[in-house]
Amino acid sequence: MGLYDLSHPIETGMPFFPGDPEPRVLPGRGAPPWQVSALELGTHTGTHIDAPSHRFPERKAISDFPPEHFVRSGLVVPVAGLGDDEPIELERLEPLRAAIRAGDVVVFATGWEQYWGEPRYFRHPYLSEAVAVLLAETGVAIVGIDALNVDSTAQGTSAVHERLLAADVLIVENLRGLDQLVPGRRYVFSFLPLPVRGGDGSPVRAVAWERDTRFD
Amino acid sequence: MGLYDLSHPIETGMPFFPGDPEPRVLPGRGAPPWQVSALELGTHTGTHIDAPSHRFPERKAISDFPPEHFVRSGLVVPVAGLGDDEPIELERLEPLRAAIRAGDVVVFATGWEQYWGEPRYFRHPYLSEAVAVLLAETGVAIVGIDALNVDSTAQGTSAVHERLLAADVLIVENLRGLDQLVPGRRYVFSFLPLPVRGGDGSPVRAVAWERDTRFD
Repeated sequence: MGLYDLSHPIETGMPFFPGDPEPRVLPGRGAPPWQVSALELGTHTGTHIDAPSHRFPERKAISDFPPEHFVRSGLVVPVAGLGDDEPIELERLEPLRAAIRAGDVVVFATGWEQYWGEPRYFRHPYLSEAVAVLLAETGVAIVGIDALNVDSTAQGTSAVHERLLAADVLIVENLRGLDQLVPGRRYVFSFLPLPVRGGDGSPVRAVAWERDTRFD
Repeated sequence: MGLYDLSHPIETGMPFFPGDPEPRVLPGRGAPPWQVSALELGTHTGTHIDAPSHRFPERKAISDFPPEHFVRSGLVVPVAGLGDDEPIELERLEPLRAAIRAGDVVVFATGWEQYWGEPRYFRHPYLSEAVAVLLAETGVAIVGIDALNVDSTAQGTSAVHERLLAADVLIVENLRGLDQLVPGRRYVFSFLPLPVRGGDGSPVRAVAWERDTRFD
């Protein structure tokens, strides 16, 4: 019984959010024959999760949530076919709206992961503010997307982060591999962060599994 | 239904293996009002997992294992009461030996986590080579310990790493919180690494949960 890997690889030269620390993996830091590497990352490198304190310093850090907050069920909303820097409007959420419950993970599959490593990766679709408001009002726990940002990177908007993080809805960005999941079907998602004390976010090894998976 | 957190916090000033990259969490890397931190870590910082390539460069990297390799069931072997730099002999494993199966996680609870941040943390108990040989022969998948090293740091030994990693048995070090788990009882453990391409190891957010936990 497998796990679905929803994470981009971490490596030197990977895409990163403009202005963030440049990710680097530097091997050769161990005394022979030991292999040890230095990891220069940011809290928002690669597939990662945002704490409310990413935008609101007085709000919760990633270490203020218990680990079970990051492992929970939810579903994928298919939103393929959007153009560069095009908003995901509320109507795209309508077909699955009744299936979304408080405490859920809701992940938007734009298909934009295909541009990872290309300039177009930065001109991704983004959530409309109306979608963010609805998800916050529904009380979902985590919103994810297979793109760099839930807001528009091209326009430099921030309303979606603000609506979600002000409601303690965590945000996972740079997901990949969502085509492994059936849209609308309920899975368990794991977005466990590193235990960065007081951290504003963390890279994560994002995975999902079928609800009837047994690990023994 | 909770998860048991088995990870030490990552923060500037945390203990690290002598000679490894010094871990640092550097906030203030975002453009206001955004909070972004730089993470300077090693692949073996804090609670972490070792790939076979940590000792044998030609063997598997952490990214050569599928994600399901890191989420599996197993048990805690209680080995409290040992002194500084004292080996864990085979007889300590005997009471649980029949319960250990191929593919298991086997975690040794020395109680040494109480010295995290003190000089004594580096004079921890360690596995005898006979224990490593038995675990490798049994075909366990992952061996963990609530100490800095499965080998003796004080003596600079490496036989336990070599026996385990040569058999593709992964090693998790610097666990904590094992007193939350009933010795000998079977739990699901998650030691998912960051997806460091070609990495010799990775920090992990180690957690465990009861086998009947449902996430929906």
